[in-house]
Amino acid sequence: MPTEQLIHARWVIPVEPADRVLEHHCLRLKGDLIAEILPSAEARIRYPQLPATELPTHTLIPGLVNAHTHAAMNLLRGIADDLPLHTWLAEHIWPAEGRWLSAEFVRDGTRLAVAEMLRGGITCFSDMYFFPEIAAEVALEAGIRAVLGLVVIDFPTPWADGPDQALEKGLSLHAALHNHPLIGFTLAPHAPYSVSDAPLMRIRVLADQLGLPIHMHIHETAQEVAEALANTGERPLARLDRLGLISPELIAVHMTQLEAAEIDRLSETGVSVTHCPESNLKLASGFCPVARLRKAGINVALGTDGAASNNDLDLFGEMRTAALLAKGVAGDATAIPAAEALRMATLGGALALGMGERIGSLEVGKQADLVAVDLGLLETHQPVYHPVSHLVYAASRHQISDVWVAGKRLLHGRVLTRMNESALFDIAAKWQERLTEKPT
Amino acid sequence: MPTEQLIHARWVIPVEPADRVLEHHCLRLKGDLIAEILPSAEARIRYPQLPATELPTHTLIPGLVNAHTHAAMNLLRGIADDLPLHTWLAEHIWPAEGRWLSAEFVRDGTRLAVAEMLRGGITCFSDMYFFPEIAAEVALEAGIRAVLGLVVIDFPTPWADGPDQALEKGLSLHAALHNHPLIGFTLAPHAPYSVSDAPLMRIRVLADQLGLPIHMHIHETAQEVAEALANTGERPLARLDRLGLISPELIAVHMTQLEAAEIDRLSETGVSVTHCPESNLKLASGFCPVARLRKAGINVALGTDGAASNNDLDLFGEMRTAALLAKGVAGDATAIPAAEALRMATLGGALALGMGERIGSLEVGKQADLVAVDLGLLETHQPVYHPVSHLVYAASRHQISDVWVAGKRLLHGRVLTRMNESALFDIAAKWQERLTEKPT
Repeated sequence: MPTEQLIHARWVIPVEPADRVLEHHCLRLKGDLIAEILPSAEARIRYPQLPATELPTHTLIPGLVNAHTHAAMNLLRGIADDLPLHTWLAEHIWPAEGRWLSAEFVRDGTRLAVAEMLRGGITCFSDMYFFPEIAAEVALEAGIRAVLGLVVIDFPTPWADGPDQALEKGLSLHAALHNHPLIGFTLAPHAPYSVSDAPLMRIRVLADQLGLPIHMHIHETAQEVAEALANTGERPLARLDRLGLISPELIAVHMTQLEAAEIDRLSETGVSVTHCPESNLKLASGFCPVARLRKAGINVALGTDGAASNNDLDLFGEMRTAALLAKGVAGDATAIPAAEALRMATLGGALALGMGERIGSLEVGKQADLVAVDLGLLETHQPVYHPVSHLVYAASRHQISDVWVAGKRLLHGRVLTRMNESALFDIAAKWQERLTEKPT
Repeated sequence: MPTEQLIHARWVIPVEPADRVLEHHCLRLKGDLIAEILPSAEARIRYPQLPATELPTHTLIPGLVNAHTHAAMNLLRGIADDLPLHTWLAEHIWPAEGRWLSAEFVRDGTRLAVAEMLRGGITCFSDMYFFPEIAAEVALEAGIRAVLGLVVIDFPTPWADGPDQALEKGLSLHAALHNHPLIGFTLAPHAPYSVSDAPLMRIRVLADQLGLPIHMHIHETAQEVAEALANTGERPLARLDRLGLISPELIAVHMTQLEAAEIDRLSETGVSVTHCPESNLKLASGFCPVARLRKAGINVALGTDGAASNNDLDLFGEMRTAALLAKGVAGDATAIPAAEALRMATLGGALALGMGERIGSLEVGKQADLVAVDLGLLETHQPVYHPVSHLVYAASRHQISDVWVAGKRLLHGRVLTRMNESALFDIAAKWQERLTEKPT
C-alpha cells in the first residue's frame, strides 16, 4: 500500500482554481499523488495517525516547471557576459563546447544544474542539450522530473555526426525510457536557422507517431528573422507553418519577433510559447509580447534558458522579471499580475509539455510535486496582504525550505536529500580548473 | 585609540579602481575607516596580533547605497499591486496614508525597512518621507547611514500643514543633526506636479546656503510630462531649469521621459539621475534610458523606491534588473555590464549624494562600509570565472553574511546585531491587523 502523509501549510496556493489562496490547509499525499486537500484542523482530527510535516510560516505551491533550459551549460555560467547573442555563441560558447563537450561534461554540468533547480523549487525541467541519455541518468539518480529534448541540429557535434544519427540516438533513448513515470520527451530541433527542411519534416511525422511535443528556439532575435527573409524571402514562422509544425504540439521558445497576424495564427493553432525574459534581456534579443499573447489566449510557459545566458536557473527570478517586464513592455501596469506569472511558471509549463493532467497545480489526483516557501523571514514576514504578491514580487528562491517530487522529499530544510553537496563542489572545482587553464 | 581589525576575503571588489578584483586580500580597519588594503598573506605576517574575520568563500564589496526609497512604506508592501501609478496612488496608497500616517507608522515602517536593508547589504539609504525626525531616530538606533530627505509638498499632511511648516521642521532637524557622522540630508521637493514655484525657489537658495543636494521625483511617467505641457506649455524639466534647479546638486529620480536635448542639458550641468528600474516596470511608468545617460557621462545611482511599488528593498535585485533591462532597452547586450551596475549601486549613489569622498568604494581613508557576499553556496559555488558577474547576475541578497557600517558589524552571520528580530515580527503583526481590519 502506498505511504500516506500530511503536509500542513499556513497558505496553500493551488494555482487551479486561479486566484485561490487556502489558509491553514493540509495536503494528504498517498504515494506519489495528492489524495486530498482539506483544512488543517479537519485533517488533524481525521488522520491523527499519519506522519505530518508542519509548515507554519510557509506557502505551499505546485512544483515549478522550467520549460526551457540547457542544463549542462551550468559549467559555462559567467564565462562570457555582456555580449550580443552572435558574438557570445560564435566566439565563446561554441568554442568552449567544441573543446569540452563530452558525456562527462554533460553529466557534471547537469548534476550542478539539477541541484540548483531543486534548491530553487523546480521539480520538472525541459532540457535541450547533447547527450540527453546522460541527462536522463542524472535526473533518475536525483529523482527530479525531466523532459528530455531529442536535440537535432544540421552540423556534426561530439554527440552525433548529424541529424540522422541524432534522431537515431534520441529515438533509442525514447524507446528505453518512455514509460518511466519521471521522464518525458520532446523532439527538439535547435532552431529554424540551424535545422533544414528534411529533418523538420521527419520530426513532424515522429511527433504524430509518438505523441511528442516539438521544442524549438524560434524568432529569438530580429537578426534571425531578417536573415531568413533576405536569404529565402520567408519569415521562419511562415516556413515552419508550411512544413506543418505550427500546431498544438509546438513549444516555441523566445518569440521576441511577432507580427499581429502571427499572433493570431499561434492562437488559432494552439501553439505554446516559452518565455525566457532574463535571457532575452541579457542578450538584448528583444521583448516577447507576453501580455498580447495571453490576451490572444495563447498558453505561455516560463524558462530560465541555460545558465550561460541568464546567469541562473532561478524560476522565482524569472516569474518576477516576467511580471515586471510585461507591464513595462505593454505600458500597462495591470498586465501579467502576480497570479498569472505563477501560473505561467507552473501550469503554463505543464500544459506546454502535454503534462497538464498530471502536474502544474495542486489538485486531487495530480502528482505530488510541491514547493514550500518560507515567508517567515524578515524580508517577507512583514504585513502579508496577498501571499501571491509576496511570492512573486518579494520572495526569493533562497526562502524555499522543502521540495517534493512525486511525493518524495528531495529538499529538506534546504538540504538536498539525494545529492551530495560536497561532491558537487568538487565537480565545480574540477571544471573551474580545466576551463580556466592557460593553453600551453 | 581606535580599534583595529582585519577582514580577510577570498575576493575584494573595490569598485574604484573600476574592474579590479583582488584575490585573497585583506582590509585593515582602524575605527570607522579603511586603513589599508593588502594581500592576506602579508597581513597575517605584519599584523598577527589584530583580531581577524575570515571570509574564505566570500566577496567583499562596498556597502550598497539605496539612493531613493520611502522607508516607512514597508508597512504597505503588497497592499495594492498590478495597478497603474495614478490608480495605485490615488485609490490605495494615499487613502491608507491618510488614515494611518503618524509618527508611530513611520517609526515602525522605517524599522522594518532598515532591518531589511541591512540584511540586504544596504549601508546607506536616501529617504523621502514624512516625519524624517523619526526616521533619523530609527537610523541612529540601528547604526545605519541615513540621508534624510526634508520633504516638501504643496498639500497638508499629518506631518506638516504645508511647504512652510515642512521646511521649518526639516531645517530644525538639519540644525540638530547635521554634524552627526552617520546622518546626511537632502532637500526633497516631492515632484514638479506637487510642488509650486515659491517653495522650489526657496529650496534652491537653501541648497546653496546649506550645501545640500535636491532630491526629487522628475519625469516619472509620460502622463506627468503631457499634463504639464497641456497645462503650462512647458515640460517639467524646462520649468525646473528656469527655476535654477538643474545643477550638480540635483538628484533627479526616475527620468523615464527624456529627449536628446534634455540629456545633453543634464550632462553639461552635472545632474545625477537615480534609476529605480523595478518600480518603473511595476507601475509601467516607462524606461529610463540608462545606457544613453552613462554614454553622456551622467552619474547614475540606483534606488529601490518604496516597498509598496517594488515590492522589496533589494538593491541586489535592482542591480541585476538595471543591467538586464538596460541591454533590452538599448538593444545592445554590451550596455551596462555587471561592473557598471555594481558601480551605480555603490559609488554612483555616493556621488549623487555628495558623499563620494567618504563612501561608495573600498579605498584607504574611506569609511568602512562593507558587505560580505558568500559565493560558497551551491547556486554560485560553481565555476567562478568572474566574481563581479556572479555577484550581479547570479547571487542574491540572501547570500550576504556580514555587513559593517563605519567599521561596526551590524549583520553577523545573517543575524542583526543591534535590532531585535522578534520585536520586528511583533511590529509587523500589529500593523497587519490594523491595516486589514474591516471597517465597522
